[in-house]
Amino acid sequence: MPKDKGEKTSYQLKVPKGTKDWEGRDMVIRDKIFTNITNVFKRHGAVTIDTPVFELKDILAGKYGEDSKLIYDLADQGGELCSLRYDLTVPFARWLAMNSSIQNIKRYHIAKVYRRDQPAMTKGRMREFYQCDFDIAGAYDAMLPDAEIIRITCEIFQSLGWEGRYTIKMNHRKILDGIFEVCGVPKEKLRMISSAVDKLDKSPWEEVRREMTEDKGLDGEVADRIGEYVVQKGGRELLERLKGNAKLSGNESGSAGIEDMKKLFDYLETFEVLDKVSFDMSLARGLDYYTGVIYEVVTEGSAPQTSEGQTSQGAGKKDSKPKKHATNVDGEEDRSNDPSVGVGSVAAGGRYDNLVSMFSGKQQIPCVGISFGVDRIFSITKQRLAADASAAAIRTNEVDVYVMAFGGKGFEGLLKERMQVAKRLWDAGIKAEFSWKVKPKLPQQFKAAEVNGVPFAIILGDEEVAQGKCKIKEMGLPEGHAEKEGVMIEMASLEKEVLERLGRQESSPTGLAGGIDKMSMEDAAREPPKTG
Amino acid sequence: MPKDKGEKTSYQLKVPKGTKDWEGRDMVIRDKIFTNITNVFKRHGAVTIDTPVFELKDILAGKYGEDSKLIYDLADQGGELCSLRYDLTVPFARWLAMNSSIQNIKRYHIAKVYRRDQPAMTKGRMREFYQCDFDIAGAYDAMLPDAEIIRITCEIFQSLGWEGRYTIKMNHRKILDGIFEVCGVPKEKLRMISSAVDKLDKSPWEEVRREMTEDKGLDGEVADRIGEYVVQKGGRELLERLKGNAKLSGNESGSAGIEDMKKLFDYLETFEVLDKVSFDMSLARGLDYYTGVIYEVVTEGSAPQTSEGQTSQGAGKKDSKPKKHATNVDGEEDRSNDPSVGVGSVAAGGRYDNLVSMFSGKQQIPCVGISFGVDRIFSITKQRLAADASAAAIRTNEVDVYVMAFGGKGFEGLLKERMQVAKRLWDAGIKAEFSWKVKPKLPQQFKAAEVNGVPFAIILGDEEVAQGKCKIKEMGLPEGHAEKEGVMIEMASLEKEVLERLGRQESSPTGLAGGIDKMSMEDAAREPPKTG
Repeated sequence: MPKDKGEKTSYQLKVPKGTKDWEGRDMVIRDKIFTNITNVFKRHGAVTIDTPVFELKDILAGKYGEDSKLIYDLADQGGELCSLRYDLTVPFARWLAMNSSIQNIKRYHIAKVYRRDQPAMTKGRMREFYQCDFDIAGAYDAMLPDAEIIRITCEIFQSLGWEGRYTIKMNHRKILDGIFEVCGVPKEKLRMISSAVDKLDKSPWEEVRREMTEDKGLDGEVADRIGEYVVQKGGRELLERLKGNAKLSGNESGSAGIEDMKKLFDYLETFEVLDKVSFDMSLARGLDYYTGVIYEVVTEGSAPQTSEGQTSQGAGKKDSKPKKHATNVDGEEDRSNDPSVGVGSVAAGGRYDNLVSMFSGKQQIPCVGISFGVDRIFSITKQRLAADASAAAIRTNEVDVYVMAFGGKGFEGLLKERMQVAKRLWDAGIKAEFSWKVKPKLPQQFKAAEVNGVPFAIILGDEEVAQGKCKIKEMGLPEGHAEKEGVMIEMASLEKEVLERLGRQESSPTGLAGGIDKMSMEDAAREPPKTG
Repeated sequence: MPKDKGEKTSYQLKVPKGTKDWEGRDMVIRDKIFTNITNVFKRHGAVTIDTPVFELKDILAGKYGEDSKLIYDLADQGGELCSLRYDLTVPFARWLAMNSSIQNIKRYHIAKVYRRDQPAMTKGRMREFYQCDFDIAGAYDAMLPDAEIIRITCEIFQSLGWEGRYTIKMNHRKILDGIFEVCGVPKEKLRMISSAVDKLDKSPWEEVRREMTEDKGLDGEVADRIGEYVVQKGGRELLERLKGNAKLSGNESGSAGIEDMKKLFDYLETFEVLDKVSFDMSLARGLDYYTGVIYEVVTEGSAPQTSEGQTSQGAGKKDSKPKKHATNVDGEEDRSNDPSVGVGSVAAGGRYDNLVSMFSGKQQIPCVGISFGVDRIFSITKQRLAADASAAAIRTNEVDVYVMAFGGKGFEGLLKERMQVAKRLWDAGIKAEFSWKVKPKLPQQFKAAEVNGVPFAIILGDEEVAQGKCKIKEMGLPEGHAEKEGVMIEMASLEKEVLERLGRQESSPTGLAGGIDKMSMEDAAREPPKTG
């Protein structure tokens, strides 16, 4: 490399289009979101797997229909032809098929996926982005894993502080199919009509009806009958109404779907999350392979500030959904670059009982899952934190104590003493820093602590050190506070004094990192009481 | 996708060559290692950044010399030409150069990198593998960041339970250069001779001497003078000996290196890690761009069991080092597939003060860093855990409580009650599972709990439920234990009873997960006392 030294290099100093570096506060917020989500998964006994970032090209081929053009291929440099993963579902199905001894698993996977799509940074649509998938594979009694997934979803949004700010829209493919059948949709048009219905969250009924009749050749009367069904939304009462509908409950598919939903609602009530759910007959999900319950999570007022300074709040338009198990029927995707278009749904999924056999050939493993759009969740969380004054001080590092020294004439910097104190703090598991200057100036040391929002300073002076003492100072105390200037402590009880104060501080609701820590309040509940 | 249903698919069900799926116990051990390492970094105030998995091809071009042929390129599908990252250092330098406002940072990055190398699975050499880099960028007083990196390294290996089982070999490029100069090596042959010296850990002196004289045209007497120096190893006394060597301490480079090492040893003594270090004059590190202290961590008896059932322990050979900042002089790399060749060094790094300017053009940011070979650390840790009987029960999930029910004739499964109990436990932050069967059999429920090593069961029966009670049972108690059959508790105090027992269990040294938990004993020390 030194050979290049003299040469003029003309690097284009940037990251590839549609990718970004994560750093600073964004990184902290993102990691916190991942940790919260992971904690909920673990609380429900989930495990994680980690698959390679690229798969054999053949594994991905034929899985994403038209969107296959968005797959990144690796160059042919000899050997196997590979492609970057497009989602986490196909690798999961491939893994299940390869490990036929595994007949059931609850697995989560948080990782980057790759799509050569048109990036729209303001909306968080990137070419490299994170997906967070949770899936339950295995044969169980009806609707029990499905109910737990909804419960998990609610715990996750609660842990993110979104309580009361999100809705889980829910429907059932068998009910939809039943409706289509009793309305008179020919069998071969079922999926086609379903995907038209799915556009109801972006288009008015008239437009969807036009697509059904003009583009897809459906009889107008049939379309009108569908229209009467799919505008309905509600809860148990809607389910009762459908059950009371002799035609629908006389249809095999419809009746099976209603039966499922009844069970599911009972279970969700027991789990105390039924109030988060809206039974929405217009929800159809674009993808072909769902076979049972389907759902997506929407949040209101979630549109991010655009770079033009507008917000898309209340714009009444929706971005494309995060595509769980993206496949070939994806005409519904909004590729608009209009930054006023909002963030749309933040999680989506459903039951897919026939997917694994695509890889295994014969072995069938029923699955139900959900994919969290973590980049969207990140954008919204960041925006909410920005609006929350108490979150102003999100820290990029977690240092608890800054060890500093001061002195008058002849001050030698007390470097050894600062190092010894830092070493003792590290040994006690306390996060600590000190200045890497032999003779640092006191204001610079304070500034270093303040910039990073370090809550405590240990201050050493020649005199205190000689007496076996030091000062501990809580940073940012108001003028006039009794301990504003710090408290003298015995050097011998350094660790104890620091840990006591950190314990007090962490239990204080007005800690420096208050804003983001709200996100993990329930983690604190996990801490078992020290009874031993 | 359903269109494919009838067709015969002929997927080659495998992952690409040199890649693997991480799952099960391996995943748990690996995550634990990552967590331990991350905790140490955070304790020292480090932050993390996350860069894209691919970079513009130009960014990587010309950085890795001959090894550039190992870079994975993305296919040219229109637009920018990109390559998968080869290490984490070039992306870090690119990031520093792009963010010129950042003049100093302590950053860590744990992520996958990609090399089209010949895989050797038994030795953990993969085409997709993890690197864990920690680097300090910024201008500070001499040797203070360097000392902290060594201290961090020791804390990491301590946290992994490797105390007493590793050595940090250390040298200084300026001392080496001074030696070469006083021995009479021409300036233009300095790096070439340095890279020959670096082979002393794999080859005897005679072979290295032959390379110096025959291949690199060095005068035999010069080589012999070098030979007298580079066989030396030790500690402070060696440094004193070098200092007392009038020739070397009269050389500008040599004297500056000795001065640095003296400071570093003082600092390491204050940090109480000097005993972990071996000053080894034969350590040269293959890469060109180191400018100061260099080090690598070796561990004894660390060779992994091979698939042939042999161990390479004591084989006396070393595998290639994990290449921190790999560059063009990499002739030293061992590409052997001989599975008896051991794991070699598990971390390596050094100071590189001139690298960032390769990207920035002019701006210079001094850096010092270390790269942990986490795949190797994983292999060794896994092997040690396998030998450790108490680690037999590494759990793949973390469930604390399995909620089960039993009953005689007419037993309806108590599904609702099991769900309610699970819900209460989740609300309290307790990890809990129950059977997704409406009427599960008791032995199957016990089996599910036992397979996953769940420590506690809550057992519901019709009678107990009617009385507002349930049974809590610690799993795996020996026959004759007073609580072997469980303890009846009030349903009202469910959470309290479980949390109390979990608290007791976690403080017990013989917990089920004892083996792997040893790895994180010092994390426990971090827990601030509840002083209220």
